[in-house]
Amino acid sequence: MRQLRGTPLKRFLRKLPPPPSPKELVIVCQSVAYPVNVGSVFRIGDALDVKEIVLSGITPTPPNPKISKIARDKDRRVPWRYFDRPEAALRELREAGYWIAALEITDDCRPYFAVDYPDKVALVLGNEDHGVTRASLALCDAALFVPMYGKGRSLNVHVSLAVVGYHMLHQVS
Amino acid sequence: MRQLRGTPLKRFLRKLPPPPSPKELVIVCQSVAYPVNVGSVFRIGDALDVKEIVLSGITPTPPNPKISKIARDKDRRVPWRYFDRPEAALRELREAGYWIAALEITDDCRPYFAVDYPDKVALVLGNEDHGVTRASLALCDAALFVPMYGKGRSLNVHVSLAVVGYHMLHQVS
Repeated sequence: MRQLRGTPLKRFLRKLPPPPSPKELVIVCQSVAYPVNVGSVFRIGDALDVKEIVLSGITPTPPNPKISKIARDKDRRVPWRYFDRPEAALRELREAGYWIAALEITDDCRPYFAVDYPDKVALVLGNEDHGVTRASLALCDAALFVPMYGKGRSLNVHVSLAVVGYHMLHQVS
Repeated sequence: MRQLRGTPLKRFLRKLPPPPSPKELVIVCQSVAYPVNVGSVFRIGDALDVKEIVLSGITPTPPNPKISKIARDKDRRVPWRYFDRPEAALRELREAGYWIAALEITDDCRPYFAVDYPDKVALVLGNEDHGVTRASLALCDAALFVPMYGKGRSLNVHVSLAVVGYHMLHQVS
């Protein structure tokens, strides 16, 4: 086996088939506090080819050197909007036909791999310390969680996003 | 819906069923350079309940304050060993019956979701800039990649690990 680099790598990536289960995906950063996490969300959002990233509340927004560095400048490619109040964004997404799911452990949550995802999905990411607020949860259709099989209680928010996002695109039913 | 915190959260996590497709999983950091990435590998390795993390080459090892902080101290829970040469580790894993897969784009790579994973899997993570070396690839059974559907060429190595690792545990055939 030989690594692909340079032009062969570019050619390989250009010829990738679309995902088996394409989605219109929107990511909502309800109040993600750290610029490194927001940057990672942009880098992963680009990789998942999301339609849009919604930033709200205390989430830092581009232009921000830390976000750009971690995002590898994908904050200049992926469309994003800022909403002062996440609830306004969630209401608008619902009216546009999105199924809205929080990444959160609630009394009613389901493991992310036990869900049949519709074509239009909005994933809501909460604050690193406080998670998704009660007001935002009230506007969600479901809460999803990534099981923790060790001793830790959670994964970093961008890591959970990648696990759930890729699962959704590659789900075959 | 109501967030679970404190004791209800602990109880919820303690009662989680095992993964549908449990694996004996080993992560090999061939030459992961940055302590933040090694810390993330420990945090994710704990969440995946891996058997062991092998650190080799220039990969920094615990004790290291940056690793511990990012790992949320999971470097003290997940068993790890250091090998000067990754090739020695890969040979030992092969003899112990592991199927060895590099996360790398090669002339022979397969998308991670199009693979039937055996029960014992070792995932090899390369250097952030140089990927998995030719010498290590020569000792791997396969190369796997996470498709990039946007304009970026790669994900961070720990993000790819989480996507592939969780997929493997939840694969139903």
